[in-house]
Amino acid sequence: MRKENISDAVIRRLPRYYRQLTDLCNRGVVRISSHSLGQEMNITASQIRQDFSCFGEFGQQGYGYNVAELRRQIGHILGLDQHDKIILIGAGNLGRAITVHIGFQKYGYELAGIFDSNISLENIEISGIKIMHTNRLAEFCKENHPKMAVLCIPKSGAKEMVQKLLDLGVNAFWNFSHYDIHYDHPEAAVENVHLTDSLMTLSYAARRQEEYSAEPSSEEENTEE
Amino acid sequence: MRKENISDAVIRRLPRYYRQLTDLCNRGVVRISSHSLGQEMNITASQIRQDFSCFGEFGQQGYGYNVAELRRQIGHILGLDQHDKIILIGAGNLGRAITVHIGFQKYGYELAGIFDSNISLENIEISGIKIMHTNRLAEFCKENHPKMAVLCIPKSGAKEMVQKLLDLGVNAFWNFSHYDIHYDHPEAAVENVHLTDSLMTLSYAARRQEEYSAEPSSEEENTEE
Repeated sequence: MRKENISDAVIRRLPRYYRQLTDLCNRGVVRISSHSLGQEMNITASQIRQDFSCFGEFGQQGYGYNVAELRRQIGHILGLDQHDKIILIGAGNLGRAITVHIGFQKYGYELAGIFDSNISLENIEISGIKIMHTNRLAEFCKENHPKMAVLCIPKSGAKEMVQKLLDLGVNAFWNFSHYDIHYDHPEAAVENVHLTDSLMTLSYAARRQEEYSAEPSSEEENTEE
Repeated sequence: MRKENISDAVIRRLPRYYRQLTDLCNRGVVRISSHSLGQEMNITASQIRQDFSCFGEFGQQGYGYNVAELRRQIGHILGLDQHDKIILIGAGNLGRAITVHIGFQKYGYELAGIFDSNISLENIEISGIKIMHTNRLAEFCKENHPKMAVLCIPKSGAKEMVQKLLDLGVNAFWNFSHYDIHYDHPEAAVENVHLTDSLMTLSYAARRQEEYSAEPSSEEENTEE
C-alpha cells in the first residue's frame, strides 16, 4: 500500500537507494539489514524503515532486505521498468554531453530521438542516434509517444518548445534551460537542473567557509535583528 | 550588515536574482521595483525585500532598485568579483561538456586547469586549455591556488582525489561524482550535482502525474495509516 503525499525528501532518497542497491548487487551482496544499509548510506536504520514504509513492506523481520528484490521494487516505484522513451531537444554541447554521458539504457530508459532546430546538424549521429530537425517533432511524437523530454536549449526558445511538447502529449521535462516551466504549466512534471546556479551557490559557500575559518571566535557578532 | 545563519533557501535564490538582474541589464532596464522584479521571477515583493534584508539595504524607498548596482552587490555576495580559479578533474564526456558549456568566465571565474589520470589525454586542448596529467596537480595547486574543483570522475577514484585536493588547500567541490564528500569531510564546501538522480526523480513524478490524471476522483483512497 502506498501512502499518499509522500514527502519530497523521501522521493529524492529513492534514486540514492536504487544506486546503493545496484552497487550492492554488483558486489554480490544478497541480503542486507537496514542497519548495514544505513551505514553504507550515512542514514539511520529507522530513517530507512520509515522511508520504505511509505511504499509498503519490503523487508522481513530478522532477515533484512533481499538486495536484488528491493532494488527491483524501488526501480518499479521509480518507473525504471517501464522502458520509457525520452527525447532530447537541443544538440549543442550540453545536449551532446547528456546523450553520451547519461547511460539512459542503464536506468531502463530509451533515448528515442534527438532534435535540433539547426538544419546543419540534421542526420549527424550522437551515440548512434541521428539528429532530427525539430520540424519532425510532431510526427515523431505521434508515432513514438515519448514520456519525457530533456530540454538542452536556451531560455529564449524554451517557452514555445514546452507548449509544443505539451500539445504533443509530453508532460515531463528534464529542464536544463532557465525557463520556469512550472510558472506557466504547474501541472507538468519538471526537474530543473540549473548548473550555473549550483556553481554560484558553491562559490558563496566557499567564501563563507573561508570567512568562518579566518574569524577568531571571539569576534563573532550576532547581527540578527 | 549581513545576518548570520541565512537559510539555504535564501542563498539558493541569490543565483536566480543574479541571472534575472543580468537579463534586465541586457534589456537596458535601469531601475526596478521589488514588485516588478517579483513579477518577473514569480516571487512576491515581500519575499524579495525579506531576502535582500539578510544582506543589508539594497533599495531606496520609493525608487526601487538600481539594476546594475543590485546585480553588482549580489555578484559580490556570491563572490563572482573575486576571479576565483577553478580546476576541473576528469576530462571525459562530462568534464569536456562542462568545460565547453559552462561559461566560467561569464560568471567571473577562471577555469585555470583541466586534469585527467589518462596519460593519452595529456596536452589535448579543450576550449583552449591543455589537459594535464593528475600527477601535476600538486605543483599546479601550489603555484595557482585554485579555489574550487569540479569533480567529473567516477565514485571509485573520488575519495582519494578529494583527500588529495584538501591536502593541497582546495576546500570547495562542485561534485558530479556519486562520492559523498560531506560524509568524510563535513567542513568542505560542496555542491552535489547528481544528474541521474534528478532523471529518476522526474521519472517518478511523471508516473505519479499520470496516475493522478487517470484516477477518477471518486476512487481516491486514503491509505494513510
